[in-house]
Amino acid sequence: EQEDTEDGQSLVFADLSAEEMSQVVRYLQGHLGVPLVEASRAKPSENCIAWLDVQVPAKAEVLRFLDAGGARPPREALAVLYFGKQPEPNITELVVGPLPRPAYHRDVTVHKYGGKVPYHRRPTLAVEYKQIGGFLKSQVFPSAPAFMQQVMEYDGANLATVTAAPRGFQSGDRVTWFVLFQNVSGFFLHPVGLEVLVDHSSLDISEWAVSRVFYNGQYYRDMVQLESAYMQGRISVEKVRKAPRDGDFSSMKPRAPAAAPFPLQFEPQGPRYRVRNNQVLFQGWSFAFGMNPNTGPRLFDIRYRGERIVYELSLQEALALYGSNCPGGMSTRYLDGSFGIGRFAYELVRGLDCPYTATYVHRHYLAETDTPKTNQNSLCIFEHDSALPLRRHFSDSQSFYYGGLRRNVLVMRAISTLINYDYIWDFLFHPNGAMEVRVHATGYISSSFLHGRGTDYGNRVGPHTLGTMHIHHIHYKVDLDVDGRSGHLCAWLWFIDMEYEFVKDPWSAQNTIERPYLRRERLEREDEAAFPLNVPLPRYLSFVSPNPNKWGHPRSYRIQVISFAGKHLPTNSSMERSVSWGRYQLAVTRRKEEEPTSTSIYNQNDPWTPTVAFADFINNETITNQDLVAWITVGFLHVPHAEDVPNTVTVGNSVGFFLRPYNYFNEDPSVDSPDSVYLSRE
Amino acid sequence: EQEDTEDGQSLVFADLSAEEMSQVVRYLQGHLGVPLVEASRAKPSENCIAWLDVQVPAKAEVLRFLDAGGARPPREALAVLYFGKQPEPNITELVVGPLPRPAYHRDVTVHKYGGKVPYHRRPTLAVEYKQIGGFLKSQVFPSAPAFMQQVMEYDGANLATVTAAPRGFQSGDRVTWFVLFQNVSGFFLHPVGLEVLVDHSSLDISEWAVSRVFYNGQYYRDMVQLESAYMQGRISVEKVRKAPRDGDFSSMKPRAPAAAPFPLQFEPQGPRYRVRNNQVLFQGWSFAFGMNPNTGPRLFDIRYRGERIVYELSLQEALALYGSNCPGGMSTRYLDGSFGIGRFAYELVRGLDCPYTATYVHRHYLAETDTPKTNQNSLCIFEHDSALPLRRHFSDSQSFYYGGLRRNVLVMRAISTLINYDYIWDFLFHPNGAMEVRVHATGYISSSFLHGRGTDYGNRVGPHTLGTMHIHHIHYKVDLDVDGRSGHLCAWLWFIDMEYEFVKDPWSAQNTIERPYLRRERLEREDEAAFPLNVPLPRYLSFVSPNPNKWGHPRSYRIQVISFAGKHLPTNSSMERSVSWGRYQLAVTRRKEEEPTSTSIYNQNDPWTPTVAFADFINNETITNQDLVAWITVGFLHVPHAEDVPNTVTVGNSVGFFLRPYNYFNEDPSVDSPDSVYLSRE
Ligand SMILES: [Ca+2]
Ligand SMILES: [Ca+2]
Ligand SMILES: [Ca+2]
Ligand SMILES: [Ca+2]
Ligand SMILES: [Cu+2]
Ligand SMILES: [Cu+2]
Repeated sequence: EQEDTEDGQSLVFADLSAEEMSQVVRYLQGHLGVPLVEASRAKPSENCIAWLDVQVPAKAEVLRFLDAGGARPPREALAVLYFGKQPEPNITELVVGPLPRPAYHRDVTVHKYGGKVPYHRRPTLAVEYKQIGGFLKSQVFPSAPAFMQQVMEYDGANLATVTAAPRGFQSGDRVTWFVLFQNVSGFFLHPVGLEVLVDHSSLDISEWAVSRVFYNGQYYRDMVQLESAYMQGRISVEKVRKAPRDGDFSSMKPRAPAAAPFPLQFEPQGPRYRVRNNQVLFQGWSFAFGMNPNTGPRLFDIRYRGERIVYELSLQEALALYGSNCPGGMSTRYLDGSFGIGRFAYELVRGLDCPYTATYVHRHYLAETDTPKTNQNSLCIFEHDSALPLRRHFSDSQSFYYGGLRRNVLVMRAISTLINYDYIWDFLFHPNGAMEVRVHATGYISSSFLHGRGTDYGNRVGPHTLGTMHIHHIHYKVDLDVDGRSGHLCAWLWFIDMEYEFVKDPWSAQNTIERPYLRRERLEREDEAAFPLNVPLPRYLSFVSPNPNKWGHPRSYRIQVISFAGKHLPTNSSMERSVSWGRYQLAVTRRKEEEPTSTSIYNQNDPWTPTVAFADFINNETITNQDLVAWITVGFLHVPHAEDVPNTVTVGNSVGFFLRPYNYFNEDPSVDSPDSVYLSRE
Repeated sequence: EQEDTEDGQSLVFADLSAEEMSQVVRYLQGHLGVPLVEASRAKPSENCIAWLDVQVPAKAEVLRFLDAGGARPPREALAVLYFGKQPEPNITELVVGPLPRPAYHRDVTVHKYGGKVPYHRRPTLAVEYKQIGGFLKSQVFPSAPAFMQQVMEYDGANLATVTAAPRGFQSGDRVTWFVLFQNVSGFFLHPVGLEVLVDHSSLDISEWAVSRVFYNGQYYRDMVQLESAYMQGRISVEKVRKAPRDGDFSSMKPRAPAAAPFPLQFEPQGPRYRVRNNQVLFQGWSFAFGMNPNTGPRLFDIRYRGERIVYELSLQEALALYGSNCPGGMSTRYLDGSFGIGRFAYELVRGLDCPYTATYVHRHYLAETDTPKTNQNSLCIFEHDSALPLRRHFSDSQSFYYGGLRRNVLVMRAISTLINYDYIWDFLFHPNGAMEVRVHATGYISSSFLHGRGTDYGNRVGPHTLGTMHIHHIHYKVDLDVDGRSGHLCAWLWFIDMEYEFVKDPWSAQNTIERPYLRRERLEREDEAAFPLNVPLPRYLSFVSPNPNKWGHPRSYRIQVISFAGKHLPTNSSMERSVSWGRYQLAVTRRKEEEPTSTSIYNQNDPWTPTVAFADFINNETITNQDLVAWITVGFLHVPHAEDVPNTVTVGNSVGFFLRPYNYFNEDPSVDSPDSVYLSRE
């Protein structure tokens, strides 16, 4: 039943192949009529290809193809170009097709964003960081020679920088705090107390300048002023001890010899799932998978027993917003999508990131180069024994028997390293038709140089290291198409919760019973269906189809959120609209082809004029009998403590949500599982 | 380091052995000077031994023994007797010692409860249910012969009963609704529409009587009135189809042939943990374990790296409170402790309830008999590969390396079957010094006969079956002794949460930054430290010791709760005080030897005069620098739906809490793990 999808149907969602990427690059190089420089060495004043991705066809078109025998939609790519060498520098998005032999391109920028996208919004390329590094090394540091040599023991290579973001306070700004660390393993834990504010807004690198310098709690106009204050003994020097190359306390090198090998999983007759191109098949489940180079994992056409439940499930954004009494720290509100959640999902280590027996899949990206790169084994798929029964009952009343079923689960995983942090993205498929989405945070914490009242913003975790508090808020799009047979999309959102009613007992009418009862309500409009972040959700929330199950209840899937989110940025913040998805723990909107994502990678460098503002999606449209999308925010407040060194642990640092059948079937579908066990005395 | 506990020390917490139980019974039979009848055949008007348990010595005494070289406390048992054959029938609790050769007993009832415990509070023995069954069969059903034969097709054996509880509306009542079901496999899903209210308060069985009868939405004075209404055609008959012996839709028999074997775990060099008597040792962890016959799993002296973190961690109660439009359903507020969470933890099925390779341990109980019974293999202990890294980081900036560690976890598990329901009790020990406590719910739902506006109280899940809504609320006691070296017990409770402050950026003072900062607060009194059930907790709550870690922060353990609790019973309910622990998601009190448990098994049959009322513990005593206890409520609202048939699944139905080190160490203790992995290009 799970295999009713014809071979190749799911390819309509497939990521670009390396070959397709090369073809698009060749086409662009030959057909744009402008000089293109490879992004890995482009100056801000030049043109380059920033990145490519597949252009997933419009949903209506895909459904015609998948469900109604329509033609296969033409295969197209999305190409994003930074045009620095134009009269009006800008970011341009082109759709290029048809693949594999491109013959046309069209500029979709204005259609998508309602206007041209200004050049200053472009995400910062690796080459720009390299150019800033060169600027610091050749022009900035030399202007404070004594300070750099005596306090920093600077030798041209022993300092590493970490960027803050956003970069300024108003649209057009590109002024970034760079925080300096000892360049050792795990350098994120070794701040040296120096931070430099660089104005790199000019397209002419020679015009870049230092706007401000920070050292150990004091601000200076520039390095020259810092040097002179230092020479005059007017600064409080807090010299850090030189760390060894392995970072000492930041090192992850084992300290104990390896012990007895841990328990391992094996598959007596090989895997029980299949991975076929971009599709996974497992015990009634099927889905297509891919990775957006920016926003990361995306799943399409998730079906159980042949019926579509979810059209699209995709990560949208990961926000890390910090507090600190150092300027870099207090400026930091990373929107990880703009760094590249997908392309920074690197190779997984077999037996550690995923089980030895997992299936590992390569992903190809074209970003900031003209040739595709492969992240080998960067997605894994495996069946896991959760060492729990899915269900069980031991009967000792009336008759003795035992029935049960193991809870094995199919997991798809990728892990993205975003500067210091590693996010583990999991998608789990349970044997009862439930899905689970969860994210674990690990990797290095970010840190500030400890000074003054630093512990108002975190905990001291090293001699000079302040582990700075931050929130991790993560946003998902879930285009549920519950009961989505043959392109049937209409749905309602219901909530159910409990109340108590005070009733006389019906058999004597002399006593009062406080009796729980159900309150069921249909939500009519987007504004009602936008649930604020820190207010408890109604206990049951479900996407309801018009069709009843055998018992007369509308077939539905329930959304259950597990989250410990921090506080959302106050709405009077000048950048709040750029992360306004964070206002809501759950928001349900009418699906629109023009609202494909809740944010934009252009929001990071111009959050003051957000290219996409999720708040605009919530405009009180009716949500009854519509194609609906759920947008879910999960997250937690992270106050780093000593045990975050060397790395944050995954234990307890996990958030996510379930999609659970709720009267969708007529009984638990696991009754049909071949893994069921029944024992009895008879 | 983990093995510094001398052999046998943990035996101070050990459950009674079968031999010890026999000795106590022999002692009681010989020394009480009253006739004792075996509880399995006792009449209400006779005396019997209800159950035995170990009498764990007072904490001060235990700590003198464990930490200060004091003498081993004498080993004693607690014996609970139902004295039905006394001028003033009562429940008496005796401490009997010393074991193994008892020579004394003392009555502790008045000391523990401030007075005698009235006989009517006694939990209902199996024999009492049997006596009620006989009463129904021999006296009640025969008085409605036509109805029973034609509507119920009653043949003397094809009906099963399920008890409601509590049993009435005021102290002294013992009037119970019994709900009738077809006596087939999974009968809980086969209500026939008949419910009988039996007054079994008299100690003279011949005085028992039917107080009311319910059939398909209507109430009758007794069976005679029902019969006559039936004969006159004045009742609406809703005859259910006779189910086959296997229960049809309630059956757990597999429907599909077994498929390829699932992934299995093996231990290449055997287990890496040790089970020694009642003690478990695993990678720095050690703890003593046991099972209270009533309240279930209990752990003592939980240490990590030789330091005590928790003195006692024990389950207290599981409440299931239902809504329904049938009388049995709407009366049901099960306090599972009074049924026996421990003694109904039955044998675990190898490879399904726990992994094949787990270590299985027997438990012995003496309850309602004079000879101990053994629940074979009813506790399991295993190391589990959670298929996640505990921590990992992939470095691509500055240098290329990978460091990480698998997240293997030690699990101790028991599963209690309480009538229809199965609770999976897990205690997890993580390699970073964190503990996790969680409970999964599975087994059969309870159900009512569908009639009228039944779906105000649940969902229809079968032809005549209403899956009735209910809350599962579960209470734990956690006597944290953070940093508990040498009997050092003092602690504080701190909370930390985030706020935003609006500050001018310190480098230009021209722009506003909304900066997160930490609010730390010490809680001074019990009333402040009692957090209501449905209000979000402060994001960080920790038990703080007076000693700082290397970085100057007080060593502490953080409590993190994962719960989806329903609404607590309104406080104006006449039985609310008996479950008043449910008012609080977390409450922290001064530890008192006189407040060992948050409830009493005597609360079920007299919730109107609770023998123990947790609310009384919260009397605003100071909680600074004291021996503190955390009391934690977790739970969820369960609105049964079609997929709860045949059994509730564990997916998504899990709640619990973490105890996580928070500046307790100087760095993550997993740095010393022999399982660490480090890879690098160098
Ligand atoms: Ca809208
Ligand atoms: Ca939809
Ligand atoms: Ca108190
Ligand atoms: Ca304590
Ligand atoms: Cu973090
Ligand atoms: Cu339940």
